[in-house]
Amino acid sequence: MATLVSDSRAKKNNDKASENSTAQVIGGHGTNSYSNNSSYQRLSANIVTKKIEDAIMKNLDVETLSSTSNIFRVADFGCGVGSNTINSMQDLLQIVKKKYISQCPTSSQMPEFQVIFNDQFTNDFNTLFTYLPQDKQYLVASVPGSFHNQVLPKSSLHLAHCSYSLHWLSRLPKELRDERSPAWNKGKIHYTSAPPEVLMAYATQFAEDLDDFLSARGREMVSGGMIVIVGSSIPDGMPYSQVVNGIMYDCMGSILMDMVKTGSISEADVDAFNLPIYACPPGQFIEGVERNGLFSIEVIELMNPAPWLKGPIDIPVFVKHVRAAMEGMFSNHFPSKAIDELFDHLVLKLSDISQQLESCYRDGLQLFAILKRK
Amino acid sequence: MATLVSDSRAKKNNDKASENSTAQVIGGHGTNSYSNNSSYQRLSANIVTKKIEDAIMKNLDVETLSSTSNIFRVADFGCGVGSNTINSMQDLLQIVKKKYISQCPTSSQMPEFQVIFNDQFTNDFNTLFTYLPQDKQYLVASVPGSFHNQVLPKSSLHLAHCSYSLHWLSRLPKELRDERSPAWNKGKIHYTSAPPEVLMAYATQFAEDLDDFLSARGREMVSGGMIVIVGSSIPDGMPYSQVVNGIMYDCMGSILMDMVKTGSISEADVDAFNLPIYACPPGQFIEGVERNGLFSIEVIELMNPAPWLKGPIDIPVFVKHVRAAMEGMFSNHFPSKAIDELFDHLVLKLSDISQQLESCYRDGLQLFAILKRK
Repeated sequence: MATLVSDSRAKKNNDKASENSTAQVIGGHGTNSYSNNSSYQRLSANIVTKKIEDAIMKNLDVETLSSTSNIFRVADFGCGVGSNTINSMQDLLQIVKKKYISQCPTSSQMPEFQVIFNDQFTNDFNTLFTYLPQDKQYLVASVPGSFHNQVLPKSSLHLAHCSYSLHWLSRLPKELRDERSPAWNKGKIHYTSAPPEVLMAYATQFAEDLDDFLSARGREMVSGGMIVIVGSSIPDGMPYSQVVNGIMYDCMGSILMDMVKTGSISEADVDAFNLPIYACPPGQFIEGVERNGLFSIEVIELMNPAPWLKGPIDIPVFVKHVRAAMEGMFSNHFPSKAIDELFDHLVLKLSDISQQLESCYRDGLQLFAILKRK
Repeated sequence: MATLVSDSRAKKNNDKASENSTAQVIGGHGTNSYSNNSSYQRLSANIVTKKIEDAIMKNLDVETLSSTSNIFRVADFGCGVGSNTINSMQDLLQIVKKKYISQCPTSSQMPEFQVIFNDQFTNDFNTLFTYLPQDKQYLVASVPGSFHNQVLPKSSLHLAHCSYSLHWLSRLPKELRDERSPAWNKGKIHYTSAPPEVLMAYATQFAEDLDDFLSARGREMVSGGMIVIVGSSIPDGMPYSQVVNGIMYDCMGSILMDMVKTGSISEADVDAFNLPIYACPPGQFIEGVERNGLFSIEVIELMNPAPWLKGPIDIPVFVKHVRAAMEGMFSNHFPSKAIDELFDHLVLKLSDISQQLESCYRDGLQLFAILKRK
């Protein structure tokens, strides 16, 4: 079930306030905080670490990189709050150091390392800093701002990491907020099970966001630098209603429509609300990278994000994780009483269909890609 | 009265938790927050801006600096929370741009600019980021950590700024916590009016801190880069009891001892409490820079930090400012009820001696120095 949770790792990657409908991770250390409810993400990260190591050992030319600079910068784009981002960055540093030792065994010293944490201006960097180990062997910076724009100096970055962040759209496509558009998403909150115009509006926005992301990283990264991308995906051509997240989004929409009937919320509010989440299939991702033109694709594959998860799901625990990641999105739009009602009903509704959840497609739902700056 | 307030601009520049007795600015936007009570600091900053401009126009060789890098980094060390640090950094950028236009009129383009905000790990960077203008023309990073250590990559920084931060000692000298030492500061909370051993302990710690600060900046800065230092000082040889801050610290000590009598706090707590604030006279500062050896002194002078302030002081407003900056220090040591009592009594006590406050020495209490990396 890590698929669903990972996909729900809400981060607000849009600082264009007027268009802002994306979500925010719950900061701090409280019961519903992201930092206390993100253990699944760490499990998922462990699995990709080995793949990253293979790619870096094979393809990252640290000798050339270190010939032009005595600092090696690693950045996490869409870092969120919690120890996962710090653990991921430390894993990357270990791998890079291993590559240095392997490629430059006679070199007298390692470069300095700087770890850069990027997320929205509204991210809880204060809490993130409390997770840094006292004895860290690297320099640290946080860089606030949307990763769809340049946030670091030109040609200053050597290795970038972006895990479960790219699927957050920078904004909701305008058509979704236009009652007269065929993409007006009546009674639903996502493109799952929606008319094709809705899916098209999401896909088009994602393509634009991906291009902005790659262009910004293209400016920031040195030639030969690499981006590791991990995130939500789906096999080309598969409808989103066949995967756990899609089923859950349909459930959420249907619960919200029930709440309209009981008067808890208005129908107009549900119609105007859409989750700004898009799981890009690999075909579209490859097309976007090639059209952008600044990066070569070194690795791309679909993975099972949580192959260790079999058998029955603990629905209440699972919904708690989902809530930690997604609550901000809903609370920007609906009254707080409605949020409790939504998540309480979600536990019941998902419990009713637990058989369906367990038997649905869950294999290739995680995109793993490594790009190299040309 | 800006002197006193500036001197009280509490910032916790020590992340050695076990030794930590320095203060912390009140974050957020509340009534007692530093961000809402730091207007005096801005007035003071305006006055030094002209002096900084003169020094940069005369001594900063931007042509040489830009020949090795297309990024120009400016950092504020001990930035705190609020708009003052952002305004100061923007003022510096304006001056640097002016120098570029003047020195390189035929250059096709400016470098990129990155503004770096440094303060303790516990600083409220979240709130600081809310003050950044939407249309800023520079990149931003925050770098948490004590400025007594290296916090930026080697040779990456071009211009540093440190305003009213260096006077915060990284730790209280051990002697002040040893009952058997001649520097045990019984019944007092500062070296003002204390035995010479107490002053010596403070001065020695400051010298060590200054050396650490300069050595760290020495590693981070490019050759030819500059540090602007503004902060609390006093003419060589003048006792601190002759200036407003000293008088106030004496008042605070005496109020705390009265509170011991009424049983609000214990005598042992007062004896063990010392404000980790040291106003370095210019002679000692020059000696420290020369001993460190990494920087040349381009400018050094004592200024009146607030020459526009004449006539009667609005004591309640003034104490509100002091409290915003200093409360954290006291609240780490005394119960919160005692803090209210202390600041309430401070208003009364300072009102009683308002004549003395207004007539005491207030001219050369601000050190202004510009150092250049050799």
